[in-house]
Amino acid sequence: MSHIGVLGAGQLGRMLALAGYPLGHRFRFFDPASDSPSSLLADHLAFDYADTSALEKFAHGLDVVTYEFENVPVETVRYLEKFAPVYPPAIALEKAQDRFVEKSFFRELGIPTPKFTINGLSHGLTDENGLNKQTLSRIHGEKRTLDEVEFPAVLKTRRMGYDGKGQAVVHSEAELISGLSHGNTDKNGQADGLILEEFVSFDRELSIIAVRNKSGDVKFYPLIENHHRDGILRLSLVTGNISSDLQKQAEGYATKVLSALNYIGVLTIEFFEKDGRLLANEMAPRVHNSGHWTIEGSATSQFENQVRAATDAPLGSTNPLGVCAMVNLIGNLPDATSILKIEGAHLHLYDKEPRAKRKLGHITFVEKDMETLQKKIDLVKEAYELF
Amino acid sequence: MSHIGVLGAGQLGRMLALAGYPLGHRFRFFDPASDSPSSLLADHLAFDYADTSALEKFAHGLDVVTYEFENVPVETVRYLEKFAPVYPPAIALEKAQDRFVEKSFFRELGIPTPKFTINGLSHGLTDENGLNKQTLSRIHGEKRTLDEVEFPAVLKTRRMGYDGKGQAVVHSEAELISGLSHGNTDKNGQADGLILEEFVSFDRELSIIAVRNKSGDVKFYPLIENHHRDGILRLSLVTGNISSDLQKQAEGYATKVLSALNYIGVLTIEFFEKDGRLLANEMAPRVHNSGHWTIEGSATSQFENQVRAATDAPLGSTNPLGVCAMVNLIGNLPDATSILKIEGAHLHLYDKEPRAKRKLGHITFVEKDMETLQKKIDLVKEAYELF
Repeated sequence: MSHIGVLGAGQLGRMLALAGYPLGHRFRFFDPASDSPSSLLADHLAFDYADTSALEKFAHGLDVVTYEFENVPVETVRYLEKFAPVYPPAIALEKAQDRFVEKSFFRELGIPTPKFTINGLSHGLTDENGLNKQTLSRIHGEKRTLDEVEFPAVLKTRRMGYDGKGQAVVHSEAELISGLSHGNTDKNGQADGLILEEFVSFDRELSIIAVRNKSGDVKFYPLIENHHRDGILRLSLVTGNISSDLQKQAEGYATKVLSALNYIGVLTIEFFEKDGRLLANEMAPRVHNSGHWTIEGSATSQFENQVRAATDAPLGSTNPLGVCAMVNLIGNLPDATSILKIEGAHLHLYDKEPRAKRKLGHITFVEKDMETLQKKIDLVKEAYELF
Repeated sequence: MSHIGVLGAGQLGRMLALAGYPLGHRFRFFDPASDSPSSLLADHLAFDYADTSALEKFAHGLDVVTYEFENVPVETVRYLEKFAPVYPPAIALEKAQDRFVEKSFFRELGIPTPKFTINGLSHGLTDENGLNKQTLSRIHGEKRTLDEVEFPAVLKTRRMGYDGKGQAVVHSEAELISGLSHGNTDKNGQADGLILEEFVSFDRELSIIAVRNKSGDVKFYPLIENHHRDGILRLSLVTGNISSDLQKQAEGYATKVLSALNYIGVLTIEFFEKDGRLLANEMAPRVHNSGHWTIEGSATSQFENQVRAATDAPLGSTNPLGVCAMVNLIGNLPDATSILKIEGAHLHLYDKEPRAKRKLGHITFVEKDMETLQKKIDLVKEAYELF
């Protein structure tokens, strides 16, 4: 039995605890918000992430610390490392928290990404992030940026963006300059905080969820097909129709990241699929919304495997038990009865107050074939107009 | 979202909460023991079941109350009914808490049972329990008892027995008289508190788990094959080889009980199978150890269906997802790593201190065929010598 500390107490932390209790573990959460989805299920310390005395209290007696979102300050993790091991390692957070660092890291490892560039290079950015010189020269200056990344392009904040926040599609030099000088600067008003990315007209959005334990054992779930609306994940599908070639590409890329970071825990990489080729868009050093289907759809859920990896246990099977669909409940909830009466519907509610664009829950189906699965999805559409 | 109160905070309550949180419900436990398996997962009031002011505090704001063991005092339930509905109904507890009342109730409903009789009828027992006059006359007096129930027979306490406690096989009149006058009297020294039952050389022990909601919808899990040692359940199997005739017998008997009690919640009935015929041995008005396989082995677990029934939601599918085995971990735990490395092993630990004969956890497998399942069971035997 391990005492597991979790930074962040949202729905991901809640599902971590729900998966970890059956293995006999105990949980303690740390989250500045006191009424978060995990707070009823375990001890919960509600302090600022910079409050070192609270962090020390939190760490007392813990065997291991993990986190459920990638924007926890790296300094917090570094501080906690004095008291207990933290998995995934802090370096994974550093790579994932900045889109420019992240994509440069992918490139270094030979993992294809959409074209990208940053602005304001002349204001001090060096190659300390591992960016090679050729790239540096290509993206030197705003004017030449436009030459490299064609319109339409996507202007994003390098940090703290999620669920489509901090992103805008720009169609012209005028829109880009406007974005740079007005709305789309970062919190400190720095255009340095922005990245301009190629707009990929992808065939599909796919994600791979990988897990690696201390012994270096690695397992992968099958590639997941993701459908977004307004930048927020709405539907994830495990269709069984992923080619072994595509699966191998994804596993190869994930393996490179896991090895480079000496990673322990669950790692998610989101890809664009274009003409049978995968382009890495971003990664999350944690369990992921697109992996919620694993709770019922795989012998071992991503949450249980995260707990197993963090506690140095053998990893569990990641094989899918059928074709699966996961429907996100965003902003507003359907009537629970109308969902629960659908045969095979697994309803997950996070006990959060409804609010626009907020993830409040999800529904999973595990079925034998896509036809049956599609019928279930259609029934959800009837019961839940927001979907 | 409902606030659900649970009387008893053992592993069954723990698994109820783990199943109910995903549906968005909140839990509060009441159990005299303060360090019980559920106490970390939710609010927990540790007071005596007779403490009405504590019960009132417990009931405050609850939408519904349920219980996780059948020896909770009926008076406690009756008291709580003033504040919130209690499911299953108190009458189910009354029927299940006394083996004589229980078996007489089965007989009234036309459900076959092993032969049974009680001693000390002359000391005041009337037919208020619905015992018919023919039966009364047959079991009048100890001497004639022996004529009716042949040796070997099983002498049991009528109340508070579980896991083989309060039971003894008697092989002769001398052993019976000794049992009656010495060890096997009830807490008050009354032989009235004992029941003598036919020793059935059964072919199999089977249990059915049924669930009924407020609207009267009923669902059944498939009959479960149970293997005991020293009176304690060791292994439950869902083999897929139950004949439809046997399943129908069991469902018919369960339906009679559910209807007679206007039951809401999960009900378990344990049977002896002898020559293709089912004899009801006992019932439990709650989720049951023999149903733990449903967590992974069915689309909806017995725990989720208990929560659904208690909150007036539609019942979920009870279809098995494969052949299943549930191995109980009794008295002592195996090394977790040796279990978790078995592909497909679902380990459930209750966070209880090891003690002889104590249920500390269980392991479930869901497989495609019995051959694979047997291999997994054999691997558990290698890793866990107590099994």
